[in-house]
Amino acid sequence: MSINSFGHLFRFTTWGESHGPAIGAVVDGCPPGLRLSEADVQPWLDKRRPGTSRFTTQRREPDQVRILSGVFEGRTTGTPISLMIENVDQRSKDYSEVALAYRPGHADYAYDAKYGFRDYRGGGRSSARETASRVAAGAVARLVIPQVRVRGWVEAIGGDAIDYAAFDDAAIDGNPFFCPDPAAAIRWEALVDGARKAGSSLGAVVACEAGGVPAGWGAPLYAKLDAELAHACMGINAVKGVEIGDGFAAAALTGEANADAMRPGDAGPEFLANHAGGITGGIATGQPIRLRVAFKPTSSILTPVATIDRDGAAADIATRGRHDPCVGIRGVPVVEAMMALVLADQALLHRGQTGR
Amino acid sequence: MSINSFGHLFRFTTWGESHGPAIGAVVDGCPPGLRLSEADVQPWLDKRRPGTSRFTTQRREPDQVRILSGVFEGRTTGTPISLMIENVDQRSKDYSEVALAYRPGHADYAYDAKYGFRDYRGGGRSSARETASRVAAGAVARLVIPQVRVRGWVEAIGGDAIDYAAFDDAAIDGNPFFCPDPAAAIRWEALVDGARKAGSSLGAVVACEAGGVPAGWGAPLYAKLDAELAHACMGINAVKGVEIGDGFAAAALTGEANADAMRPGDAGPEFLANHAGGITGGIATGQPIRLRVAFKPTSSILTPVATIDRDGAAADIATRGRHDPCVGIRGVPVVEAMMALVLADQALLHRGQTGR
Amino acid sequence: MSINSFGHLFRFTTWGESHGPAIGAVVDGCPPGLRLSEADVQPWLDKRRPGTSRFTTQRREPDQVRILSGVFEGRTTGTPISLMIENVDQRSKDYSEVALAYRPGHADYAYDAKYGFRDYRGGGRSSARETASRVAAGAVARLVIPQVRVRGWVEAIGGDAIDYAAFDDAAIDGNPFFCPDPAAAIRWEALVDGARKAGSSLGAVVACEAGGVPAGWGAPLYAKLDAELAHACMGINAVKGVEIGDGFAAAALTGEANADAMRPGDAGPEFLANHAGGITGGIATGQPIRLRVAFKPTSSILTPVATIDRDGAAADIATRGRHDPCVGIRGVPVVEAMMALVLADQALLHRGQTGR
Amino acid sequence: MSINSFGHLFRFTTWGESHGPAIGAVVDGCPPGLRLSEADVQPWLDKRRPGTSRFTTQRREPDQVRILSGVFEGRTTGTPISLMIENVDQRSKDYSEVALAYRPGHADYAYDAKYGFRDYRGGGRSSARETASRVAAGAVARLVIPQVRVRGWVEAIGGDAIDYAAFDDAAIDGNPFFCPDPAAAIRWEALVDGARKAGSSLGAVVACEAGGVPAGWGAPLYAKLDAELAHACMGINAVKGVEIGDGFAAAALTGEANADAMRPGDAGPEFLANHAGGITGGIATGQPIRLRVAFKPTSSILTPVATIDRDGAAADIATRGRHDPCVGIRGVPVVEAMMALVLADQALLHRGQTGR
Repeated sequence: MSINSFGHLFRFTTWGESHGPAIGAVVDGCPPGLRLSEADVQPWLDKRRPGTSRFTTQRREPDQVRILSGVFEGRTTGTPISLMIENVDQRSKDYSEVALAYRPGHADYAYDAKYGFRDYRGGGRSSARETASRVAAGAVARLVIPQVRVRGWVEAIGGDAIDYAAFDDAAIDGNPFFCPDPAAAIRWEALVDGARKAGSSLGAVVACEAGGVPAGWGAPLYAKLDAELAHACMGINAVKGVEIGDGFAAAALTGEANADAMRPGDAGPEFLANHAGGITGGIATGQPIRLRVAFKPTSSILTPVATIDRDGAAADIATRGRHDPCVGIRGVPVVEAMMALVLADQALLHRGQTGR
Repeated sequence: MSINSFGHLFRFTTWGESHGPAIGAVVDGCPPGLRLSEADVQPWLDKRRPGTSRFTTQRREPDQVRILSGVFEGRTTGTPISLMIENVDQRSKDYSEVALAYRPGHADYAYDAKYGFRDYRGGGRSSARETASRVAAGAVARLVIPQVRVRGWVEAIGGDAIDYAAFDDAAIDGNPFFCPDPAAAIRWEALVDGARKAGSSLGAVVACEAGGVPAGWGAPLYAKLDAELAHACMGINAVKGVEIGDGFAAAALTGEANADAMRPGDAGPEFLANHAGGITGGIATGQPIRLRVAFKPTSSILTPVATIDRDGAAADIATRGRHDPCVGIRGVPVVEAMMALVLADQALLHRGQTGR
Repeated sequence: MSINSFGHLFRFTTWGESHGPAIGAVVDGCPPGLRLSEADVQPWLDKRRPGTSRFTTQRREPDQVRILSGVFEGRTTGTPISLMIENVDQRSKDYSEVALAYRPGHADYAYDAKYGFRDYRGGGRSSARETASRVAAGAVARLVIPQVRVRGWVEAIGGDAIDYAAFDDAAIDGNPFFCPDPAAAIRWEALVDGARKAGSSLGAVVACEAGGVPAGWGAPLYAKLDAELAHACMGINAVKGVEIGDGFAAAALTGEANADAMRPGDAGPEFLANHAGGITGGIATGQPIRLRVAFKPTSSILTPVATIDRDGAAADIATRGRHDPCVGIRGVPVVEAMMALVLADQALLHRGQTGR
Repeated sequence: MSINSFGHLFRFTTWGESHGPAIGAVVDGCPPGLRLSEADVQPWLDKRRPGTSRFTTQRREPDQVRILSGVFEGRTTGTPISLMIENVDQRSKDYSEVALAYRPGHADYAYDAKYGFRDYRGGGRSSARETASRVAAGAVARLVIPQVRVRGWVEAIGGDAIDYAAFDDAAIDGNPFFCPDPAAAIRWEALVDGARKAGSSLGAVVACEAGGVPAGWGAPLYAKLDAELAHACMGINAVKGVEIGDGFAAAALTGEANADAMRPGDAGPEFLANHAGGITGGIATGQPIRLRVAFKPTSSILTPVATIDRDGAAADIATRGRHDPCVGIRGVPVVEAMMALVLADQALLHRGQTGR
């Protein structure tokens, strides 16, 4: 089985390195007849695009997507959709240091241990640049499940969390942090600026919710909706934790406190709480699907860290260059994309088996 | 792709319901020539077996495994290994209440929404009894990677955590909680007894570590070692969160605080910390793989909870019968099994692609 | 990917050896709500069952199937259906000769080259006994596509072919050869008897047709309906060739002679010929799907053949014991089963992607 | 599972239509460290390239391949290899006739039945142009198994077969038919010219052999080497039959006549015949792998054929434009590529499971 593909029926395969000529995704299994053009994909890529504020990497990539196949007269044909994004700003810089010494926290050492060598330019295949392909594929996934709204935001940066009482959906796109709490956004400006100027970095927690998922999507065992979402999100660069619903907090609760009681509603049950995050037994309940994702701080920092070089000798390495001081921020459109991709896949799996 | 199978090259498929005649697993892709008999599997099943203390369900299942295929003259042949466990204690009880009303937190409602009906006896396919099949398959996986030691324990019950300063590996198997901190084990006795007597339930956090995993296992993108582990663990009944290494705590750190510095060691690097939990870029670094798993409290409680019945009418339901007051405890051998299964699979994938 | 599984959405996994305690199949992905009991499976197994005439192996196996999971109150639940058939007549015989020397034409030598050793008793996993599992799984597949009628027959034995002008569907089940031409059936009686008495064996050609397959099932490239059928049939023991429609005869035709002209019909087109065997571009046209399968003569013969033993020394081997003089005869229900399994899978794949 | 991908561990995904901007393949799972540049791929594409003689379509495509990812400093990195071929000669022509009426023998009607509409320009995704992607991927596969030599040729055109007594490997690349028999090549010149001038078309039989495949590659049941090859070849446009070794001829033999006797050889057995085509029980024996593939005559012919249009009304259609009068000729490099792709995949699967 291919290890650069994701999904069962709605499936995508990505390719490309940070400093190659281009990156891309091939989306397979898309239903035929959906309206699709570059204009449906570009806005999501623009959300993820680097260089739009001083709080993200200064690499300037237009991230213009081209659809090379799978669309005819403005509609998907049911055949593979090839999406390509050219790399433009592969700034000529000296990678000799990165080529020789392993950056702690990066994939460098593990990669060499696996393959014997690696494309070290800008992280090669392990670069967060690969996530642009996921976002492009995710834009197609959204068209497969128009009834679903996937919406993410940053919940905390460097341990400073939003106040959910101040949650304002409209605020999310109004600041460079995808922050739904305007007061927190102001605090984060100083926080992230400080980290950036110090050559340091910060971790973040991203939350994401999918509304409109009908009860029944998912599977009881080895393609559980929550397991697929955990796989999807833990596979994003820099992610170290995933929670569904109450997550680790549920582990401290009693059964009574954790119960999502039901009463008769207009269409199916009305739930009195959503500790479960919209999933029981791996299957959607019809409530909003809720998850949280932990991003570690960017491993690229200016402070020199002890390491070894390719010959095993001691070295110190400081990572200069263009980096996100808080990689979790641009993680929001990526988490959204992965959630949309999982849900589109589950929608087709469910329809395949049950006809609904 | 089958949704009751797990793994790429080392792959298993499970079948069976709580109250059917038997459950089982078919393990496929096992290397030939490994010594294997029922005696290699049974001890792990015995760790998971119900009814061994008053802190677990009182269902009495001997959980005797039979190997029906794939072994000849004591060695694996490279062909499918069929493992079967007969169900013995399917106590005749009245399931009419469960058949009619949906138990909140259980798969009941979502299952009906998916399939239109369900085997409601004892949870049917969604019963935690299915995890016995995982444990049996996991026992085979351990034989594929003898250099690896997978070891799990309970870290917290109902919010009461162990003191890692008192961690004693030898203590884990000496109490009914897989607790490495003898003082915590004594506290938990009262805690779980209280919940059990009150007909309530408790959540738990399970930790698991794999030592001896060589640097290089894993994959850079869509079969990342951490993503596969997250999928494996989030797919266990009642799990709501998974962390690798520092997990959510890493999201509150700076890049400096999160860096796992390296210095020259005897064989490869020596790491000065393990915030990463032994995985960077989806690939093992050679450090111990560390993860944490959050189990919600058992949804079966005696306190009546508001719900609806199959006709959509309001109802109250209290779940009588035999249940684990804290399902996370018996989750330990299951988390271990899933970790072993992922690692065996990655070992073969790595060897297939790289020849190492 | 597991190598003992077949299918994408409707998928089955088989296990078991000729002389182990049992064999079986786990059918995954079956739609919920279908009526299913052992009585739906047994008749197909009875067609394939050995020992029913002197023209098949004299091994006496009742081939009683048990359904161990996936069915509740007489209907499929959408979860794995575990089918088990116990081996009864594992006659105690001396396999020392087979254990030491490789039978030409059998899997013996190649198996040892792959795995280093093998379960040599009765062919082990390579025994045609495994096909009982396929037939059992195929019986479930038929229920998924009740609108389809899959029907196979023997077209030729040892080069002696039926006369299609005498084709009588009703005759197929009236003789021990699944022969639709009563005159040929009489000839074959002498032919196969002669081979049996001489300790020789004969090859055969099996034809199979599926009526009622709607236009649209299939896929344009790497899951082409014809490619999937070729895979399914070439994977049956002793098969050496597969043709769709006119097959190799089409290679000698001109485009004009091979054209399947169309004219307006009551529901879609009416075809004036079916050279294509009901498939163009990998997708069903709505015509009957037609294929032919070549079975080589059973490799087990009494005439000694030169071979080598496990130490590489020269040896002669004659295969005594219970064997089908013409393994193609009992291939009919197996080809039917594989065709039903492919079609059920394609039906679900088509529905998953297109909603139809 | 994706339906535009092929292979288990060495896996490729293709995309693109006849008249889109480009076509391509993403090769995943390639071992790291192999020398690879465009110069390794281009010669195989040149063999398949249209417009090189008057016996193939006159579409002029340079078929220049670009490697967009997966190679660093001239070596494969173990990450996806993106291969792209731009479409150059999408001659502006009037497709209104093809858009409206279904060409018999083509995918047109079945495609519309499946997806509701299609990209009709030049066959869209069903165009034989897609096979260029297979050939490009196959060139990479050859590098994975340098010990194997895959070699194909045309055995018959329009029923006129070569004389194997006159077989000359060196002649194959010396004529426009990949014909190993110089006398047949001269006959075919007149034969194909006649068909071309008449606006007719001819079928062909392609043979292919792989030498150097070690005993042990393959799998006993559902990834049998012969089944995988049958799938690979039956999935090529216009193929209607596949044989391994003696194929259908074996069905007319007795067991004695079909036996491949063995005697001790220098390394493993020496076989006295190769009726089996180098595969028993789905596993390679170490003999040359031999297969034959039947290509139907090109369905595009000038003679008008009765058909229906999209509204179901009667119509006649004659296919003007640029077409191969015998599509089987250019099938040779495609069959070779598919064989190399299957063998590379099996090599990695074998190594993954057994370590050899």
